[in-house]
Order: sequence, then C-alpha cells, then structure tokens
Amino acid sequence: MHDPLSRTFAALADPTRRAMLARLSSGEANVSELAQPFLKNMSLPAVTKHLKVLENAGLVTKGRNAQWRPCRINGEPLREAGDWMELHRIAWEEQLDRLGAYLKLKSKGAAHGRKKQVQ
Amino acid sequence: MHDPLSRTFAALADPTRRAMLARLSSGEANVSELAQPFLKNMSLPAVTKHLKVLENAGLVTKGRNAQWRPCRINGEPLREAGDWMELHRIAWEEQLDRLGAYLKLKSKGAAHGRKKQVQ
Repeated sequence: MHDPLSRTFAALADPTRRAMLARLSSGEANVSELAQPFLKNMSLPAVTKHLKVLENAGLVTKGRNAQWRPCRINGEPLREAGDWMELHRIAWEEQLDRLGAYLKLKSKGAAHGRKKQVQ
Repeated sequence: MHDPLSRTFAALADPTRRAMLARLSSGEANVSELAQPFLKNMSLPAVTKHLKVLENAGLVTKGRNAQWRPCRINGEPLREAGDWMELHRIAWEEQLDRLGAYLKLKSKGAAHGRKKQVQ
C-alpha cells in the first residue's frame, strides 16, 4: 500500500484520526492540545501513533518553530481523495440516471402498447 | 474498526478495490468480468478476497438472479464518505481564507503605519 491515495484512505479509516483532522480543520494545535480529548480512552503513545499515521500520509504537518510545533492540516491529499470520490459519485449517479431513463422509456412503450390494444 | 465510515475508507485504501469500483461505476458486471483485468497480476482467490472487502463494506452488492449474479456499486456509503471529505475540505479552506484575511489586514496595518511615518 504505497500509493498516496491508498495511504490517505487508510489514514482516514479510523474515528480517532478523523476526529484529529476535524479538530485541526478549525485551526492549528500542538500535540498536547490535540491529544487531550482522547486521553480519557487511550494512552498518550496510542494517540501519538495515530498522529504519526496522519503525518506519514501527509495529512498533517508540524510547524518549524522549535519552541512550539503546531500541527496543521494539509488539505492537498484530502482534496485528491475527495476528487476521486466525486468522480465516482458522478459516474454512479449517471448510471442511475441511465437506468431511470431506460425504465421510463420502457414504461412509455408499455403504455403505448396498451393504447394500441384499446383502439 | 466497526463504524461504517471507517469500513468505507479502509475498503478504498487499495488500488485494486478502487479499480473494481471504477469498473462498476460504468455499469454492473459479474465476478469473472470484474476479476478478468486483475488476473495477470494476482490469483482469483486474491481478487475475490478484494471483492469480499467491498461487499462487507457495503460498497458492492450482488444481484439476486440465481443464474447471473451481477455485482453493482452501492453509492450510499461512498456518498457518506464523500460528505465527510467535503465537510472538512470546506473547513480547511475557510481556515486558509481566515489566515489570508488576517495577513491582508496585517499588511494593510503595516502599510498604514508606513503612511503615518511618511506624514
């Protein structure tokens, strides 16, 4: 699983990591701020491991300030994954539209057939 | 990883499974049709295992016709995952907008400061 898109989707496949991204969507935070809401249910190493997955997938970057290293969301991989979803959502919806049009045509044909019988 | 959204993202975290969904986006197909393009690089059991992951995540359903069981894409989980992505894309872009507005304001303030010095 080395392609970037697979790494992005794998990183998103966990509620803790999605919650971290949701938190970072509203603004940058340092590691302790980011970890705090999860420490009731998991250990700090478990939280930092999740953060590491997000960093490795390129979804989160750490600032360069030595004193305070704020975590920031990096939207580019999210955007690429979103584009993939959107592309297939459109294709799937077009498929449904074609099916709908076919069924409409078929029911019109059937109605026409009934009309002919009545005449 | 029992929540539906995590299952959807985990199912999407593989290029073979994404290719299968892309194929099904253009219309239904039976298992052999769906497997065929992948059999150069992997065994049939490996392909059917990938298909099973898609089925377990609810992304693919099999038709009920006993003779011919066509696989179909099920767009609902994809839509939910797409909605999640979209929500955070918006939040992330708003964050960038706020940062942009702040920097603009700051640079205006600096320019105003310079003007005052000149007068």
